Amino acid sequence: MSDQTKNNTSSSFGEQISPVMVEVTRGNMVESIHRATYVVVDAAGKVVLSGGEYERMTYGRSAIKCMQALPLIESGAADDFNLTDAEISIACASHDGQALHVKTVQAWLDKVGFIPDDLECGSHLPYHIPSMVELLKSGGSESTLHNNCSGKHAGFLTVCKQMGVDHKGYVNYEHPLQQRILGTMESMCGLDLGSAPRGVDGCGIPVIGAPLANIALAMARFADPSDQPEARQDACARIMKAIAAEPFMIAGSDRFCTKIVEATKGRALIKTGAEGVYTGIIPELGLGIALKADDGVTRSAETVIGMILKHLKIIDDETALALKDILEPPLFNRAGIQVGQTRAAQNSPF
Amino acid sequence: MSDQTKNNTSSSFGEQISPVMVEVTRGNMVESIHRATYVVVDAAGKVVLSGGEYERMTYGRSAIKCMQALPLIESGAADDFNLTDAEISIACASHDGQALHVKTVQAWLDKVGFIPDDLECGSHLPYHIPSMVELLKSGGSESTLHNNCSGKHAGFLTVCKQMGVDHKGYVNYEHPLQQRILGTMESMCGLDLGSAPRGVDGCGIPVIGAPLANIALAMARFADPSDQPEARQDACARIMKAIAAEPFMIAGSDRFCTKIVEATKGRALIKTGAEGVYTGIIPELGLGIALKADDGVTRSAETVIGMILKHLKIIDDETALALKDILEPPLFNRAGIQVGQTRAAQNSPF
Repeated sequence: MSDQTKNNTSSSFGEQISPVMVEVTRGNMVESIHRATYVVVDAAGKVVLSGGEYERMTYGRSAIKCMQALPLIESGAADDFNLTDAEISIACASHDGQALHVKTVQAWLDKVGFIPDDLECGSHLPYHIPSMVELLKSGGSESTLHNNCSGKHAGFLTVCKQMGVDHKGYVNYEHPLQQRILGTMESMCGLDLGSAPRGVDGCGIPVIGAPLANIALAMARFADPSDQPEARQDACARIMKAIAAEPFMIAGSDRFCTKIVEATKGRALIKTGAEGVYTGIIPELGLGIALKADDGVTRSAETVIGMILKHLKIIDDETALALKDILEPPLFNRAGIQVGQTRAAQNSPF
Repeated sequence: MSDQTKNNTSSSFGEQISPVMVEVTRGNMVESIHRATYVVVDAAGKVVLSGGEYERMTYGRSAIKCMQALPLIESGAADDFNLTDAEISIACASHDGQALHVKTVQAWLDKVGFIPDDLECGSHLPYHIPSMVELLKSGGSESTLHNNCSGKHAGFLTVCKQMGVDHKGYVNYEHPLQQRILGTMESMCGLDLGSAPRGVDGCGIPVIGAPLANIALAMARFADPSDQPEARQDACARIMKAIAAEPFMIAGSDRFCTKIVEATKGRALIKTGAEGVYTGIIPELGLGIALKADDGVTRSAETVIGMILKHLKIIDDETALALKDILEPPLFNRAGIQVGQTRAAQNSPF
C-alpha cells in the first residue's frame, strides 16, 4: 500500500457515526455490535425513515441486480426468448448453487445459444453446503454455473445477443452492455454517474458508487414507477412479478431473501449484496429501502432490514414470530446448543 | 427475544466509541470500515499502548487457548505422556483440519488412550478448503478430529486422565477440569472471575468475560513470567517454545497466525479467536497484546495486530514488505484480479 494509493481513494466514512443497530450476544453478555446506515424513500425522493449518513457513497453490489436486469426486459430479449419468471428471477439473484439453480441457468443458456464457458463470472463451489458436499462426493467440481451470479450473467449474455454485440468482454466497463446498464442506473438513481467512484465486483462487472439514498430512490421507482416511461413501468412490473413468483430463484432454500419474499408473499422484495448491503422494494407503500452495514457483515444487514420491515408493518407481529429464527437468529454451537443471538440492539432507533 | 432476556444481558459497548482501525477499499473508494479496541500491557499491568475502551468485558474465545493449556503442563501430564512440541502447540490451536493436524490429534489420543468420540467439541468440515475438497472427494466425512479445537480438547482429555477424574462432561463449567482452568485464568488475569459474564463457546466449553486489558495482562505474564511461581514459569516457557517450534500446528499453512509466528521466528506469538479477538505474546519486550474488533470480523483483527507488531518494531520494514499480502491483503475477485484491499485506515492512530 503506497501513500499514493491512499490519496486516490475517497472515503466518506466517519463524517457522521452510524447508529449501533445490531448486537450479538453470547451467554449473558453482548459480544459484538454492528453499526449501519439505512434510508427509506418514496419515488419522489422524500426520505421517510433514516439513520446514519445516507448520502454516503455506497456500492450497491448484488443488491441492485434488479436494476441491472432492466435491459433484459427493455431490450425485448425477455419477450423474444420467452423468458420465464424463474429465469428473470435468477437474473436478479445471488443464488446458492442448488441443483435447480444450476439447471435453470443451464437450460437458459441452451435456449439462447451459449455455453457455461461464455459466462465471465468465474467459478466457485455452491454456497449451499449440502449441495457442495453432494457435488464433491459425486466427483463433480465447481463451474461457472455454480457461481452465485450465473443467472445475472446469463441475462447479460442474452442482452448482448439481443443487442447484436459481441458478448466477449461483456463484464468490462467500456462494453456496450455495461454502458447501457450504467445509463439505466443513472435514470433510476437520478444521477450522473460518469465520474462516480468505481471498482470491480466479485464476478467481474463494474461496481458504481452512488449515495445510499439514491440507491433507495431506484428501489422506490420500482415500487412506484408511475412517473417512469411506459416501457420502464412494464419492465419494473415484470421483474417484481417474477421475483415474487419465484423467490427460491433469488437466493435459495436456506436464505434470508428467499424466506422474506415468500413469507410476505412479495409485499417485500428484498435483496442482499456483498459487504452488508441490502435493498428492499415495497410496492404497496411505493417505498424503496437501502442499507449498508459499516463493517460489511451480512448478519447485521439481515437483522436491520427485518427491523425496517417490522417498523413499516410489512412484517406484522404474527409473521415476525414465525420468522423469529431468521430476523433475530439464535446462535448455536457445534453441538447444536443455543449459546447466543443476533438481535436488534437495545439502544437502536427501533 | 424477550425483554427479560435483554435485561439480563450486559453490554459495555457504546460508552466509548472505538477508533476506526481498518478500511476495506474497492476501486477508488473505501467500501467498509472496522472499529476495534486494543491494549498492550506489561507484566505489571502498565498500559503501554491502547485505543478504545480497553476495560470493556470481552470473551477471549480461542485467543486464550495458551492459558487454557497451562494445566496440561502444570498437572504433570505433558511430562508423563511425553507430549511433543507439536502436541502442545496444537493444544493451543485453532487449526484448519489439514491432514497433519488430524494425524497429530489422532496419534495423541491413541497415546493417551482415548478415541475421537471422546472429544466433546463436535464435528465440522476442515476449514482448509483443499483439505475439505480432498476429504469429500475421497468419500470421507467430517469428524471431531477436523474440528479446529480438537487439539485443545485432546489436551483437556489428557488433563482429565492425569487428574484421575471422569472425562465425561469435561466441557461443562462445573467439571473439575473447567474449574481448574477458571482458577488458572483468574491468576493469570489477576481477577476474581466467579461472577464474570459467562457463555458457551462454539466447541462447547465455557467462555468467561474479562476486561480486555486483563486478557492482555495474562499474555504479558506469559511474555514475562518472572513474578509467577516457578511451576508456572516453566509451563509458560514450555508452551511458548512449543508454539514457536511448531507454528503450523497453531493454525495451518494458509493462516495468519502461522505465518506471523514463522516470519518473526517466535518473537511474536499471536493467536486468533472468534468474533474478531486477537492476542499476542512478545517475550523480548515482556508485553502482552489483546484486541477485539467491535463487529467480530477477523479480517480487521488480523490487520490491527499487524499494525501493532509494526509499531512495536517486532515486524520491521523488510519483514512487513515480505508479509504485505497478509498484513494489508489485496482483495481479489473470482477471476483473480485485484479489486481492492484491506488496510490500516487513513485516520487510524498508527
